[in-house]
Amino acid sequence: MRYGYAEGLGDPRLGALWRQLGHSEPVEGLAAVIAGVAAAPADLDPDRWLDLLNVPHDGELATRLRRLRDRAAIGDPGAAGDRAGRLAALRLELGRRQLAGFVVPRADEHQGEYVSARAQRLAWLTGFTGSAGLAFVLRDRAAIFVDGRYTLQVRAEAPAELFEFRHLVDEPHAEWLTAALPRGGRIGYDPWLHTADWVEKARTAIGPAGIDLIACEHNPIDQIWGDQPPPPLAPVVPHDLRFAGRSSADKCTELAQTLAARGVAAAVLTQPDSIAWLLNIRGGDVPHTPVPLAFAIALADGSVDLFVDRRKLLPATLAGFAGQVRVHPGEALGAALDGFGSSGARVLLDPTASAAWIFDRLHLAGALIVREADPCLLVKARKNPVELDGIRSAHRRDGIALVRFLRWLESQPPGGGLTEGEAAGRLLGLRREGDLFRDTSFETIAASGPNAAVVHYRVGPDGGRRLERGELFLLDSGAQYLDGTTDVTRTVAIGEPSAEMREHFTLVLKGHIALATVRFPQGTTGTHLDSLARRPLWQAGLDYDHGTGHGVGSYLSVHEGPQRISKMHNPVALQPGMILSNEPGYYKSGAYGIRIENLVAVEACREFSAPVRPMLSFETLTLVPIDRRLIVAERLDRAERDWLDDYHARVRRILTPRLDRATAAWLDQATRPLGS
Amino acid sequence: MRYGYAEGLGDPRLGALWRQLGHSEPVEGLAAVIAGVAAAPADLDPDRWLDLLNVPHDGELATRLRRLRDRAAIGDPGAAGDRAGRLAALRLELGRRQLAGFVVPRADEHQGEYVSARAQRLAWLTGFTGSAGLAFVLRDRAAIFVDGRYTLQVRAEAPAELFEFRHLVDEPHAEWLTAALPRGGRIGYDPWLHTADWVEKARTAIGPAGIDLIACEHNPIDQIWGDQPPPPLAPVVPHDLRFAGRSSADKCTELAQTLAARGVAAAVLTQPDSIAWLLNIRGGDVPHTPVPLAFAIALADGSVDLFVDRRKLLPATLAGFAGQVRVHPGEALGAALDGFGSSGARVLLDPTASAAWIFDRLHLAGALIVREADPCLLVKARKNPVELDGIRSAHRRDGIALVRFLRWLESQPPGGGLTEGEAAGRLLGLRREGDLFRDTSFETIAASGPNAAVVHYRVGPDGGRRLERGELFLLDSGAQYLDGTTDVTRTVAIGEPSAEMREHFTLVLKGHIALATVRFPQGTTGTHLDSLARRPLWQAGLDYDHGTGHGVGSYLSVHEGPQRISKMHNPVALQPGMILSNEPGYYKSGAYGIRIENLVAVEACREFSAPVRPMLSFETLTLVPIDRRLIVAERLDRAERDWLDDYHARVRRILTPRLDRATAAWLDQATRPLGS
Repeated sequence: MRYGYAEGLGDPRLGALWRQLGHSEPVEGLAAVIAGVAAAPADLDPDRWLDLLNVPHDGELATRLRRLRDRAAIGDPGAAGDRAGRLAALRLELGRRQLAGFVVPRADEHQGEYVSARAQRLAWLTGFTGSAGLAFVLRDRAAIFVDGRYTLQVRAEAPAELFEFRHLVDEPHAEWLTAALPRGGRIGYDPWLHTADWVEKARTAIGPAGIDLIACEHNPIDQIWGDQPPPPLAPVVPHDLRFAGRSSADKCTELAQTLAARGVAAAVLTQPDSIAWLLNIRGGDVPHTPVPLAFAIALADGSVDLFVDRRKLLPATLAGFAGQVRVHPGEALGAALDGFGSSGARVLLDPTASAAWIFDRLHLAGALIVREADPCLLVKARKNPVELDGIRSAHRRDGIALVRFLRWLESQPPGGGLTEGEAAGRLLGLRREGDLFRDTSFETIAASGPNAAVVHYRVGPDGGRRLERGELFLLDSGAQYLDGTTDVTRTVAIGEPSAEMREHFTLVLKGHIALATVRFPQGTTGTHLDSLARRPLWQAGLDYDHGTGHGVGSYLSVHEGPQRISKMHNPVALQPGMILSNEPGYYKSGAYGIRIENLVAVEACREFSAPVRPMLSFETLTLVPIDRRLIVAERLDRAERDWLDDYHARVRRILTPRLDRATAAWLDQATRPLGS
Repeated sequence: MRYGYAEGLGDPRLGALWRQLGHSEPVEGLAAVIAGVAAAPADLDPDRWLDLLNVPHDGELATRLRRLRDRAAIGDPGAAGDRAGRLAALRLELGRRQLAGFVVPRADEHQGEYVSARAQRLAWLTGFTGSAGLAFVLRDRAAIFVDGRYTLQVRAEAPAELFEFRHLVDEPHAEWLTAALPRGGRIGYDPWLHTADWVEKARTAIGPAGIDLIACEHNPIDQIWGDQPPPPLAPVVPHDLRFAGRSSADKCTELAQTLAARGVAAAVLTQPDSIAWLLNIRGGDVPHTPVPLAFAIALADGSVDLFVDRRKLLPATLAGFAGQVRVHPGEALGAALDGFGSSGARVLLDPTASAAWIFDRLHLAGALIVREADPCLLVKARKNPVELDGIRSAHRRDGIALVRFLRWLESQPPGGGLTEGEAAGRLLGLRREGDLFRDTSFETIAASGPNAAVVHYRVGPDGGRRLERGELFLLDSGAQYLDGTTDVTRTVAIGEPSAEMREHFTLVLKGHIALATVRFPQGTTGTHLDSLARRPLWQAGLDYDHGTGHGVGSYLSVHEGPQRISKMHNPVALQPGMILSNEPGYYKSGAYGIRIENLVAVEACREFSAPVRPMLSFETLTLVPIDRRLIVAERLDRAERDWLDDYHARVRRILTPRLDRATAAWLDQATRPLGS
């Protein structure tokens, strides 16, 4: 027991209350559950975890347990600490293991975008808290590799006397490693924290220089991180059929048919959102994405083996698994994989997303690995009609919150001292008032003036910059509702915008409209469509350095594959039901940033009758006015003006009946036709 | 001696004339040269081959040799013949070799688009003469696999009682093979006629079914094809520096630096246009593309080993090689590859374009093969300023021919009986009158009415369809000039076009203009730009089933990589100096076809000053009016109208001083501003 709360367990009154409720397990078992609950992100419902212990929310026991939980609260792994001491301890450990170095990624066993506190090894070791990065620690050198988003942040967070800073893409770590190490060097890695693809590529890159990658059974950081949080234990709840639209049994049956058609005995699922989708469950083990950390094996007979800490399953969740889903502890996964080896079975595994550990275990066991994309990805991406209805409904509520926020923002005196953080907090408060709200879908970007030119800006603990007159305020935010995930960006003028700001805003808007109105034949990918959103900027010699659109889940990840709209090659054709963002932008370094983001759903284009080829188009889902003060109406052609006026009329028509009179009057003004 | 001309060699007068000229070689050596010359496509200069023999063009010997050459003329391998007998002979040969089957591609040793008569094995065996296809001949079944362009043609040309017809993409031959053959089947292939990549992929596809691919040292078809033409012997001539713009020595030095930087000892060049570009030579061994069939090894010291039949090198060509290029017979290639093996050298080879034979030989010899794209590709694609000047000049002459043709065509009475073949012939005659004309750059597509909806339509030996009133005539043609390669498509109205034709022509034009006027940042690929040309059609529910643009060589192949503009993934960024076609279209099956094609060159965009990011744009090279009668002017926006009027004004300004008065007057009318 490394946690301070353990002492509270000795309280005899607690034990009495616990036994009074009919619990026969020893009271000490509570400690680990409470530690796991404390290692998960905060839940909007602060008492739901008590259901895991079958404890009523209103009794004395609950009060005492809450107190224990509060005492168990974990620290921020990225907070200030003795980095030099940690690095020295790691090097000592490497020496014991006869390793020349060790690689520390910002990843957990599931390779998702968000990770739990326990997996924040990179932040704990280096101080760097960005969402992507990699450190190589050698005996006498160490380097952190980050991409262009984080070149400034890494220097602010990690001590330069301990770490070199390198660019993840422009300065491949293979070159750094081969220059830093003699032949015969052995670099350790944790096979749970890298994909099979990553390990293969790294081996190919450094192998010729005589450097070997050694899989470490036990992560050396876990051995030196004294107060490392335990794996999170957020409650796993059923996702209601009125939101999911299809029963888990139905999904499992379809998946089983897919597997049988491919001649594979099973698929190993390692991505928590695939598992959550397939089993109609949700969790809360990582920030912003309502998934439980778990593994699963889907079999060709339609049944599923789920590998998860049973302590986080609510009784209703277990009841929902009846018959089809067998629950095993996480530690049983290895033995289950071995079983496929002894029968020489063909097993599907996604080498781009699955931990190398699983790949190696299957391979060593003798299974035939079929390297294909996670078979849930594409089905999950094509939302069913119930999910589409849900996302439309979520956008109505999200639109109300945004409209109320925009009206409030406009009522603030320009230059009146409002900070970015206060604005973001106000919006969160308004969203919370909506039905079915559960969480934000990512950390809000509330960026004023030059901060908005930093594409991945986040407000710091100081509350951020004040919104000043004559600036642009960029607000990129989203919510997790039980019936859908939202993501919207609006850029608004604070006071009077400059002519250049309006000019560039209008170019971004033209690109946004080009994408919103495009029709395209089946087989078209997001890579094909990306240039349509950029062309108005290109014609003016401008561009933006991010993708134009990402896939979005249904009360799941706000960044969901396999589809996307970007310059990067993506072979996945857009298909009806897929949800994507449409978010062109323009950023003037040191001055301002502009982005206009709506979510859209791919739909069959209804304008054409049978004889022509089947075409697809986008239905815009987001319902939030676009700042008319920033539009140069004369720069829009007739079709573009029509789109904007129609969009605003739709926003007004749908939201007005749901607004109070004053807000409705504001919306009426904000959405009036251009030129009126 | 399998050729009838051999008998002429006995003529004592011929021998006397031959010796009179001071030749010491026996007169019999002439036979093989003449056979090789006859196996090459016809040269615009019908006597140039006499220079290979050092024979004056005006003497009696020349007259007698010409007579021998005419007698040596080869037949068309695709012409009617005893297909059943040939197939039976092939099966007999397969039986002798204990092969279950043999694969016959439409390819030669260089995997180019055009092949010599000798390599027309597929046409000889099956009758199918399309430019892409593959036959599998088993003991009791045979199938031809062709793509969508050729599904009709293959049925018309190949006997259905002997061959099954399959789709190359939708019906993978691996599936057909594994269904047709039991485990243990051995399929022969000629390793000279398939790329290393093809063989690897085929092995992977059929291996699991227990079917093996066996490399055949001698092609069984060559053993049964009694009058198979010999390899072609078209004269190899120097390509003048005033056209090439850079000396071969300069190119070899740059290539050597590239090889040294990659740590490779040599690159094996197997693509004739790369070799022709590198050595500043041109040939005539295949139709339409002025290249000599040859192999080369470029060494990191800047020298080149050229493997070619020395008999086709003109003295001036040999003289140009001085010092830098060593000439070896083609048979010496294998031994040269072995040399890299014994030294364990790293050798660059393009597995997507090089014969498996070369790959295997290098591999077996022990060389380390670096699998990369042909290192000439990208440098060759970026035309130098002299080449760009040349291509502009070539387009002026090409424009004059086209304008004279269009005026002539308009003067023909609609419905007056003019055939597609006559129109194509007239254009060829006009092009021949221009300076530096050498050949057409591909077989002209002259398609009227419904024929134009067949994207790869070719006029048959009957002269094709008559041009009828109320139809569209689509003419896609190009020329090989010494200073550049052209490719242009115009669609013109014969009599009065329908409203629908004009509507669709205008949509195609809008797409053409969108691409012609786009500006784009460095790093943009053709895949990114493709949708811009399609969007106007997409909005109307239409599309076209071909790429939007292909690379074009400089007096080389009219289809040149690595760049292209299409839906297909292509990672190559467009770079200044690259030439591409811009050719959107629309095809209404059974009714009409529309295509508007100009060539464009990528250039640095000059509109922007330093502070914005570097942008690129296209310079339109083609100078031919676009049929105003087919444009619905009101459907164009202001910028589109401006582009068309500006383009027409430029065509008029550049061509008028070079035209006779009557043609100039016609051009004046054809290029007047819209609405005037």
